[in-house]
Amino acid sequence: MSEMKDLLAIGHTAIDYIMTVEKFPKPNSSIPIETMNVFHGGAGANVAMVGAKLGLETSIISAVGEKFLNSEYEKNMHELNINTENMIVSEKYDTPTAFGMTNDEKDQIFYFYWGAGKEFAKSNPPEKAIKSSQAVHLATGNPTFNQKSSVIAKKNGKIVSFDPGQDLNMYNEQKLKKVLENCTILFANHYEIERIEKILNCDIDKVEEFGPEIIVKTSGKDGSTVYANKEKITVDSIYHPAIDPTGAGDSYRAGFLYQYIKGKDFEDCAKFASSVSSFIVEKQGCQTNLPKYKQVIERMKEFYENK
Amino acid sequence: MSEMKDLLAIGHTAIDYIMTVEKFPKPNSSIPIETMNVFHGGAGANVAMVGAKLGLETSIISAVGEKFLNSEYEKNMHELNINTENMIVSEKYDTPTAFGMTNDEKDQIFYFYWGAGKEFAKSNPPEKAIKSSQAVHLATGNPTFNQKSSVIAKKNGKIVSFDPGQDLNMYNEQKLKKVLENCTILFANHYEIERIEKILNCDIDKVEEFGPEIIVKTSGKDGSTVYANKEKITVDSIYHPAIDPTGAGDSYRAGFLYQYIKGKDFEDCAKFASSVSSFIVEKQGCQTNLPKYKQVIERMKEFYENK
Repeated sequence: MSEMKDLLAIGHTAIDYIMTVEKFPKPNSSIPIETMNVFHGGAGANVAMVGAKLGLETSIISAVGEKFLNSEYEKNMHELNINTENMIVSEKYDTPTAFGMTNDEKDQIFYFYWGAGKEFAKSNPPEKAIKSSQAVHLATGNPTFNQKSSVIAKKNGKIVSFDPGQDLNMYNEQKLKKVLENCTILFANHYEIERIEKILNCDIDKVEEFGPEIIVKTSGKDGSTVYANKEKITVDSIYHPAIDPTGAGDSYRAGFLYQYIKGKDFEDCAKFASSVSSFIVEKQGCQTNLPKYKQVIERMKEFYENK
Repeated sequence: MSEMKDLLAIGHTAIDYIMTVEKFPKPNSSIPIETMNVFHGGAGANVAMVGAKLGLETSIISAVGEKFLNSEYEKNMHELNINTENMIVSEKYDTPTAFGMTNDEKDQIFYFYWGAGKEFAKSNPPEKAIKSSQAVHLATGNPTFNQKSSVIAKKNGKIVSFDPGQDLNMYNEQKLKKVLENCTILFANHYEIERIEKILNCDIDKVEEFGPEIIVKTSGKDGSTVYANKEKITVDSIYHPAIDPTGAGDSYRAGFLYQYIKGKDFEDCAKFASSVSSFIVEKQGCQTNLPKYKQVIERMKEFYENK
């Protein structure tokens, strides 16, 4: 990885099996699966794929199984010129995989296989990869690996963006503070912000004091809010019929980072991000409907200028 | 498929996900998967793979998804020189997949995705493939496709072996009789034999009258029995510590057919078959521990001659 990159995404690359069944089976019985779709996902990979499609020079570090090599998924990354040479490849475990089942009553259950994800714990972040990127995004993956990455990134003057997401309960107060201390932008949805406030025992407008210059709270269709320089900017979400909300958050983060790296102001970052995620939710899967820069800008202008 | 084959296997090629979890999730919750292994399976493919490894010139017809093409699974088949050119390839559905979960209490649940398997119903068996094989094995897959295949095979003087297996409840009396009418060897385990007796309203020694010259009942570690020419031969199973009994039945069938095609007597067929399956159960997965002819013969001699 000699060339300079815009963005390094650190976090899971995963496979998502999305299934429907009439009902969930009782112990010692079997049930037919009515529909099954297999999607590429994982918070790290989602950010990398969206960012790369928009035009960022991107690299990724995830922990994957050997079958990932030369898979359709890796090929998709390479088509978008994503550098995968720092992937942690497990000989022992498969790529993290999620199995989600929805029954006729719309109840859901999820089985999560972390598999190769365990290898993060034994690995050290490659300094060279971090040094060759303008921004480092820390997604769900491994708190310790993220913490170590944040230290190296900060020391090297990088933009550090942090999205603990569903891993938030794996961060104790100390580990969370350590990453925040090194981070430029903290991303969290409204539930996660509440939890962070609880862990740090303060309100959102005080979280800045723990390190991040910018805090971005995303609230789904209720829009998003940027807290920075003791100010607060709220931006509506772009309404488009959502077929599948998964991936909305990751794509928002990629969009925000795209504009932030390009030096745009916070309002512009948030509007652009909202436009990006409006494309992702239009199709099932987090990487099915990756928009190009031009499409994002057009929809963004159309929505916010005509309001 | 111009060259002459020994065996054509018709039935599922499938992927088996075998997982362990602490407990099964309640609706609207998630649970981590503790271990996950992915195996190649499907009753048609198991018979083809075992037969081909023993040395039979083999071809297969299954209904698979597009991702099967050039997959590791297809490559494994090609390494054993299995002809896959008559595979039914679905543009719409994935290869049949089974998801089996076992909890800490050793309860199991299974989710079955039939997927591409549905395409059997819309397809006609390729006459040319059937004509170019000495024997045709009909495994779980689709009763109508199997019935049609049995008619063509019988008309062309082929050995027709039939293993309805778990699909037995999809055969009504008429369909079952139609396949039996065209079949040379009926394979079934002890549970399935009971069911067949019920459907046909007769004892096992009368099933011959419906068509099959040979009826083979497999009873796991209790051995197997061959009913033919109004006689009954019982053969002990070879005891070897079983790590995973799945695939035992399919490999027994492949072994039996191997010797039958070579003109061996029924006792020899059953002993050889039992030796084959003793290898398969030693490792997890139906195609993990495929034995070579020489290994099978050695173990067979060792066991039955030293008794």
